[in-house]
Amino acid sequence: MRWSKAHLFTLKDAPNDAEIPSHKLMARAGMIKKVAPGIYTYGNLALRAIRKFEKIIREELDSRGAQEVLMPMVQPAELWQETNRWKEMGDGLLKFKNRNGHDFCLGATHEEVITDYIRHDIKSYRDLPANLYQIQTKYRDEIRPRFGLMRGREFIMKDAYSFDADEAGALKNYDLMYSAYKAIFDRLGLNYRIVEADAGSIGGSKTNEFQVLADAGEDHLMVCDTCDFAANVEVAPALGQNANEKVKSQKPALLAMEAFATPGLKSIGTLAKSLGVPEQTLVKTMFFSLNMGTDASDVSVKPIAVCLAGDDEVNPIKLKNVLGLSNPPRLLTDQEVKQATGAWPGSCGPVGLSFPVYFDGAIQDFTNFVVGANRDAEHLKNVNIDRDFKVAKFADLRMAKPGHACPKCAKENREGHYQSFRGIEVGHVFYLGTKYSKSMGATYLTADGTPTPIEMGCYGIGVSRTIQAAIEQSHDKDGVVWPHGIAPFDVHIAVLDPDQEEVRQSAEILYRDLQAHGLDVLLDDRDERAGVKFKDADLLGMPLRVNIGARGLKDGIVEVLVRKTRALEKVKAEEATEKIAALLKGIRLGGKA
Amino acid sequence: MRWSKAHLFTLKDAPNDAEIPSHKLMARAGMIKKVAPGIYTYGNLALRAIRKFEKIIREELDSRGAQEVLMPMVQPAELWQETNRWKEMGDGLLKFKNRNGHDFCLGATHEEVITDYIRHDIKSYRDLPANLYQIQTKYRDEIRPRFGLMRGREFIMKDAYSFDADEAGALKNYDLMYSAYKAIFDRLGLNYRIVEADAGSIGGSKTNEFQVLADAGEDHLMVCDTCDFAANVEVAPALGQNANEKVKSQKPALLAMEAFATPGLKSIGTLAKSLGVPEQTLVKTMFFSLNMGTDASDVSVKPIAVCLAGDDEVNPIKLKNVLGLSNPPRLLTDQEVKQATGAWPGSCGPVGLSFPVYFDGAIQDFTNFVVGANRDAEHLKNVNIDRDFKVAKFADLRMAKPGHACPKCAKENREGHYQSFRGIEVGHVFYLGTKYSKSMGATYLTADGTPTPIEMGCYGIGVSRTIQAAIEQSHDKDGVVWPHGIAPFDVHIAVLDPDQEEVRQSAEILYRDLQAHGLDVLLDDRDERAGVKFKDADLLGMPLRVNIGARGLKDGIVEVLVRKTRALEKVKAEEATEKIAALLKGIRLGGKA
Repeated sequence: MRWSKAHLFTLKDAPNDAEIPSHKLMARAGMIKKVAPGIYTYGNLALRAIRKFEKIIREELDSRGAQEVLMPMVQPAELWQETNRWKEMGDGLLKFKNRNGHDFCLGATHEEVITDYIRHDIKSYRDLPANLYQIQTKYRDEIRPRFGLMRGREFIMKDAYSFDADEAGALKNYDLMYSAYKAIFDRLGLNYRIVEADAGSIGGSKTNEFQVLADAGEDHLMVCDTCDFAANVEVAPALGQNANEKVKSQKPALLAMEAFATPGLKSIGTLAKSLGVPEQTLVKTMFFSLNMGTDASDVSVKPIAVCLAGDDEVNPIKLKNVLGLSNPPRLLTDQEVKQATGAWPGSCGPVGLSFPVYFDGAIQDFTNFVVGANRDAEHLKNVNIDRDFKVAKFADLRMAKPGHACPKCAKENREGHYQSFRGIEVGHVFYLGTKYSKSMGATYLTADGTPTPIEMGCYGIGVSRTIQAAIEQSHDKDGVVWPHGIAPFDVHIAVLDPDQEEVRQSAEILYRDLQAHGLDVLLDDRDERAGVKFKDADLLGMPLRVNIGARGLKDGIVEVLVRKTRALEKVKAEEATEKIAALLKGIRLGGKA
Repeated sequence: MRWSKAHLFTLKDAPNDAEIPSHKLMARAGMIKKVAPGIYTYGNLALRAIRKFEKIIREELDSRGAQEVLMPMVQPAELWQETNRWKEMGDGLLKFKNRNGHDFCLGATHEEVITDYIRHDIKSYRDLPANLYQIQTKYRDEIRPRFGLMRGREFIMKDAYSFDADEAGALKNYDLMYSAYKAIFDRLGLNYRIVEADAGSIGGSKTNEFQVLADAGEDHLMVCDTCDFAANVEVAPALGQNANEKVKSQKPALLAMEAFATPGLKSIGTLAKSLGVPEQTLVKTMFFSLNMGTDASDVSVKPIAVCLAGDDEVNPIKLKNVLGLSNPPRLLTDQEVKQATGAWPGSCGPVGLSFPVYFDGAIQDFTNFVVGANRDAEHLKNVNIDRDFKVAKFADLRMAKPGHACPKCAKENREGHYQSFRGIEVGHVFYLGTKYSKSMGATYLTADGTPTPIEMGCYGIGVSRTIQAAIEQSHDKDGVVWPHGIAPFDVHIAVLDPDQEEVRQSAEILYRDLQAHGLDVLLDDRDERAGVKFKDADLLGMPLRVNIGARGLKDGIVEVLVRKTRALEKVKAEEATEKIAALLKGIRLGGKA
């Protein structure tokens, strides 16, 4: 592409709403332009990266027998009502009526549509397995879109769906997609982790997320420093610092419970200080409602209490899963806590409550501990489980922390501890089971003629998000450093003296020669100063840059610069193509992190 | 693709709502499946055809310097309000509120978004020209979607937009896109015409439609039997049977106008019969309202009358253009005619009306003619223009007919007459001028620093519609006959005795060999009878079919069948690939209609 003929404009400053480096860089490089919050036009450079990524995805999926289809973005309510997700998906699903007054939504995901698609075709076990995918534009009405393509409303996604006769087959397809995703993200050259995760509202019992490591990531990951275990903090087991430590078998004698005044001591911190004990020896109590308050016809509070060590935090996803809910329960307001317990937050505890108390496993052996008295400015000491209050369930309800033992290492008798990372979720694989096939009547006949629900899996890659995640992970102060697999162009030629015929000609020859070798080349033939061109080349971040100017050409020389390492080499003009091909090969091979 | 592993199901019967052959065939071949009226999932075969078509489009546009971008489907109301199309587009534009209560629509076209996109970038004449395009999913809330992809609600479109400093530049870009479209549709091997057309609500003054000829087409075309002139009947000039015939200079003497009773004679037909004259010598009068009745605050009727020969029909598009409206005027109801004229339809005419009368050019020289008297069951004879009523304007207001003289031939003193065809509009090119740039403030600075509105053009290709149009034009009683340029597969191998190891092996070798030659191959390796496979192969319609079975292989022979001509050739198995490559080359060359 010749820059002088292209619609390609760089900006000195990023828009005000760009908070993270990748968003700023994409906007400055003209790769995305905001049309509305969370909605962007992709410029040519971004689209080239997207197309390259799509090609990689297609190659890896097609070679594994998946088959591409294309489903619509506008979807009828009837299909979503069959699975009850018309209600369950909440406001993230954008709903509207068409001109005839019929209810539709914009596809945020396609489980319903694909299940409808296959249920008419698949009749017998002979029609299974199947694996269908699409690369398509989706819309989720995010409350607070931000970070550019990272949490946009309209986005490009690859979603695949597998159909099998039984769980064994479904898990085989799961593994196949897992391997495809590994191959895809390896080819991109990204530093990523495959993590344990929560299945969320999509349903399903087995799931992994593919997370690109980057400081601006919205996900918090626990990654083992010894083995390959990694988990989203949402589900990371919290084993404490030493999982293999034996629990003391000798319990101290239970003392008599007594109240004591704690005026002004409303936080665990101040209470610990006043008592002269560490926070982790105190028990704090949090209150949630099982009633989500989303159904206007039932606004009553259905409280539960959750007790955990003073320095731990409740993990809402773990709590949701323990309670068997589809969404995390709602934290009570201060006013609701007062109503439920008789005291304002800070003086509440598990004793004397009329509703269930859930207890974090880390403190299940605590004895003679301190809790709020459910009377303002008063606490209880020497409190004990069973004697003073009943526990509905002990479970791992807390957030894991860096330094906690890795569960895989613990199981295999190794020393291994969590490290904390931020991640950008770019892919996920789900084993769905029969959630959708059962509710939508997608069955097949077994060999003996029994109608049986089809086993399903679903597999997503955030195509547009991955492009930005790659930039978030791979950039420097000057601009983007494209991973080679998705760089919009392989080579960026900076024509330094475009007013000189000889330079223009040499650049043109190199431009054509590189293209003839199958490379994608951006020729900066604009009438601009060298400094401007260098700045723009750094900003756009193609893997290799060629500087071609009058001074070098006098000696038959051009400069080849590796964007990532800034290694600069002077090369004979006639050997430039060969040199560039060799360098790109090296970059490609080095790309596999 | 191996059929045994693919999700590919053919149907014996088409769905009930499929009215035309292409819709039936696409549904039966599993290429499309309805999700909601006008909304389809594309199966793998259709998607392959679409991708091949998109590749052709990209090659032809990129080689002409157009640059691909991707705009969003969800668009904010604000942009559409700037051009007033938020109102003007009516109910075809699907509007909704997002979760924050902001107004959005689904993109039915992208003039507003692209103009917004470039107005921030283009500052000076040096930034022009530009030509940007996208291939994207659009949504139009059609009142009555039908004919499958032909008039769907959700569809795939290629839309391009050009930006120039002046009209000369814009027309150059127009010609460039015109040539690109010719190249694109030539490569598809379609029988199509480039026709004069109405610009419709998009604005603009120069436009051509690319129409694929097919009986099921929704557009009515007038195509010259002598030269290359063709026009949508909406705008086809109506010159009569002999355009070069001299108008009689001698006018007969004007007779005295008189009324006569015509009880029961309410149509031109019965009146002509009663008077014993041909219908074309009578003048009929039609009534329309300039007030469209779309604005609820003003429901008054603003009538006009249109007079034309008894056997002609009013052309609403011509009338719209003569009146300078953006939509055709509304025909009055019988009740409204009665109110406006004093008589029920059948006895109305131009004499004594209090509102404007428009007169078709074909009858401007009529004298002493018969019209309705504006009194029920009464007509007037010996009526004359000017003496008995005033004409607001003479103009070509009627529908052209087959046999009418071709205007281009008439101008160049040739004999040439219209033939009537049906067409499917698959592409259009528009010169827009400054309609959008002016209303949206998209200006550039000229060399002397004057802010000037950018000259625009827009260019569309209905990608999904074209695929079906190709099938509508190219099929037979057994199924699809794919034009080679967009055939999902080049070759269809029917394995006739899949239970025999030798046949399976030979088929496999051929399958791999053809793929190694860069061909797309569908291998029908299902455990089905030969008859089923032949029927399905005919239905799916790939250009070439190879029959490979035990009987032929005994003699080292396979059969190669050309789908279009049904020419069947016995070929040595080891020479099959070479033969197939040669045949495909012939088909490709023959494809340019």
